[in-house]
Amino acid sequence: MVDAASFKGRDIISMREFNREEIDLILSTATDMISLVDKGSDLLRGKILATLFFEPSTRTRLSFESSMHRLGGSVVGFAQPQTSSVAKGETLADTIKTVESYSDVIAMRHPSEDSSIVAAEAASIPVINGGSGSWEHPTQACLDLHTILTAKGTIDGLTIALVGDLLYGRTVHSLAVALRNYDVKAYFVSPDQLKMRDGVIADVKGKLDYEETSDLNSILPELDILYATRVQKERFKDHADYEKVKDAYLINKAFLEGAKPELRVMHPLPRITEIATDVDGTPHALYFGQVKHGIYTRMALIALVLGAL
Amino acid sequence: MVDAASFKGRDIISMREFNREEIDLILSTATDMISLVDKGSDLLRGKILATLFFEPSTRTRLSFESSMHRLGGSVVGFAQPQTSSVAKGETLADTIKTVESYSDVIAMRHPSEDSSIVAAEAASIPVINGGSGSWEHPTQACLDLHTILTAKGTIDGLTIALVGDLLYGRTVHSLAVALRNYDVKAYFVSPDQLKMRDGVIADVKGKLDYEETSDLNSILPELDILYATRVQKERFKDHADYEKVKDAYLINKAFLEGAKPELRVMHPLPRITEIATDVDGTPHALYFGQVKHGIYTRMALIALVLGAL
Amino acid sequence: MVDAASFKGRDIISMREFNREEIDLILSTATDMISLVDKGSDLLRGKILATLFFEPSTRTRLSFESSMHRLGGSVVGFAQPQTSSVAKGETLADTIKTVESYSDVIAMRHPSEDSSIVAAEAASIPVINGGSGSWEHPTQACLDLHTILTAKGTIDGLTIALVGDLLYGRTVHSLAVALRNYDVKAYFVSPDQLKMRDGVIADVKGKLDYEETSDLNSILPELDILYATRVQKERFKDHADYEKVKDAYLINKAFLEGAKPELRVMHPLPRITEIATDVDGTPHALYFGQVKHGIYTRMALIALVLGAL
Repeated sequence: MVDAASFKGRDIISMREFNREEIDLILSTATDMISLVDKGSDLLRGKILATLFFEPSTRTRLSFESSMHRLGGSVVGFAQPQTSSVAKGETLADTIKTVESYSDVIAMRHPSEDSSIVAAEAASIPVINGGSGSWEHPTQACLDLHTILTAKGTIDGLTIALVGDLLYGRTVHSLAVALRNYDVKAYFVSPDQLKMRDGVIADVKGKLDYEETSDLNSILPELDILYATRVQKERFKDHADYEKVKDAYLINKAFLEGAKPELRVMHPLPRITEIATDVDGTPHALYFGQVKHGIYTRMALIALVLGAL
Repeated sequence: MVDAASFKGRDIISMREFNREEIDLILSTATDMISLVDKGSDLLRGKILATLFFEPSTRTRLSFESSMHRLGGSVVGFAQPQTSSVAKGETLADTIKTVESYSDVIAMRHPSEDSSIVAAEAASIPVINGGSGSWEHPTQACLDLHTILTAKGTIDGLTIALVGDLLYGRTVHSLAVALRNYDVKAYFVSPDQLKMRDGVIADVKGKLDYEETSDLNSILPELDILYATRVQKERFKDHADYEKVKDAYLINKAFLEGAKPELRVMHPLPRITEIATDVDGTPHALYFGQVKHGIYTRMALIALVLGAL
Repeated sequence: MVDAASFKGRDIISMREFNREEIDLILSTATDMISLVDKGSDLLRGKILATLFFEPSTRTRLSFESSMHRLGGSVVGFAQPQTSSVAKGETLADTIKTVESYSDVIAMRHPSEDSSIVAAEAASIPVINGGSGSWEHPTQACLDLHTILTAKGTIDGLTIALVGDLLYGRTVHSLAVALRNYDVKAYFVSPDQLKMRDGVIADVKGKLDYEETSDLNSILPELDILYATRVQKERFKDHADYEKVKDAYLINKAFLEGAKPELRVMHPLPRITEIATDVDGTPHALYFGQVKHGIYTRMALIALVLGAL
């Protein structure tokens, strides 16, 4: 049976590990957390989160730290590898075997795809993957689901487009895998050079109703959720190819006139130019509202793996 | 009517926004905070301060963070922009719209003069300016006033010299503007190349009894407060000009023999050579004692804008 | 008489300052702290630790911060000098005279050998040396002693080898000086180029039963504790010399077959290659278990100097 107790001591490495029942529990726990943000909570008083960020991040690191503080806990950690023993040549496993003596739970971002697996294996305390190379970003997927659920009241039945860099974008990898647990229609919208990573296709095939396309315009009218990501110019060998596709996915107010009024636009942020600021004031814009769901979701995940619920 | 409640939700951007009654409330609130430093306080338990420092700082960042901790609150943030999403090209407004989901109040230092205005406009929570380019540093002005008030029992009636780089020094800009609310005699003492910024002169003219001079020696005997700042060598085109003026403002024990015994020397710190260490042991030295007023003042400001009083 | 109260307000600069009775008190206090790690504690609620790390560190900084949090206290600080006023040319003494207004106790790491002495002299609050150049690392020595005492039930009567870079290694300097208070047999095992620093020899001569050697093989069967450190390749002028000695101290499972079953291997970490990972799973490996004693010991030291016990 899936209940809060079943999460105690568990690592959060990949959305591949969670079934629908488990995701439902995470999301309902996240909803329970909302009222604690304003009231404050002592649920995790005396507990320590270690945030090990081997790659720069404002959003994810601060979101984890804030979530821990909202539950009354404390935080230690580092924001960049130069300040750590990694600079002296220590292995990741050794760093983890050290840090586990300083904390009760670890949140880690690392450029290597297998980093969180290595860390979870080395650690005797729970490890939460805060982004592992291009592979996965499972807490982002949880917050994305919670955002959609809160905005729409349901996830089942929606039509959702993941747009942009689907080859290297870890947020869309985790979200696509998560969506295989729902009865949704998914579009994977990208330039041909940045089609959805093979490993994700393999994991969703037969479980998720998806379609790959490079044409956002023609599917726009169907969409309930447009999840935009940054198309990374530096991935393109031919500059002309880049110029051709980037305009296709430049989302602005005029472009969204072809969408349903209920369409909501999401983005893991930071955005650069892929969503114009003239969208910010429209009812379509959900990307800033999305951020606070990171707090609710991470509060839930930290509390769950610490067995505090 | 100016009372604590009137500060709730307010931004602290510039000393230009505060009248005498408001400053008096800030200073008396700061005095109320003194006893809480030793006793400890739970006033802001459950609240989170975000410290966003886009420029290096020990003093101001640690002062804000310590102030928040003294009131039982928590802190998230970053100490340099390289560790943040700014490095990925995010706008300041977008960063703020994200961080406001992680915190209840923001303290920010940024190299752009209009940064705190931009941030305050983007944020739905209070923003406190912790230094914005060369423009303003209002919390420093508040702590300076509280230092003077505590040391002298009054600010009205004093003769106060602001000395050094008055063109680029944001601390003296904010302090000069603040002093227009008091019945003081002010001297703006600088080399001709570093005279008080025009915008400050415009804002104090007719409200503050001030005099500009490059001659510190002749006014020294009149002074109750000598507020020194660093003359920045790199601003001078002609090295000989720099050599000429820097000695004029080299404050040491011998120089201070020409001053009243009650003269107090202040400095926003860090000092490099502009105050000799032989002043440290004299009754004139107020610059290290000044530091702890930053705690009292920032405790007051954070508590006020959070509506906790 | 040595009791907890006698530590109030004291600096922790060097193991040279502590006699056996004082070390016993530190270690027994550390043991008292063990139960508080899981239970949580409010002993230092409202108190602030400043961690000033002028050199990179994961281990020591996070250990101090975690120790403070375990006792309910708060932390401010910096992890690298670039983010501090030091970059603007401030002296260490001035930095300390500032930071003491922000905190109740300071933990500092600094590349200069006399840094903690300078800081303690400038500060009116306790300063704890978290590593001062090649000179001393006293809190590491305390945690090393506590690790040995816990593992062996006693320190007196043991045979202990300090192995590796004894010239530049601050951890072995502090530990050697600490051991002069015990009835132990010590071996200082190093290549000739990295023999134990003269100042340490001078301070232990006649007080500690020690022997210098470069031959680890022949003493291995006698050892109860093998304390390994990294031999730093870059110290050697002749690469052939380095190649000759580094294998002598490459500790792996096969090498340890010549040791007592009860031998325990310690290391201040991070290790690079000097202990092979095949030792990790053996009963000899004490180096990861050692880490948590840093928490107990630093909790004890912080609480003692703050007079909280």
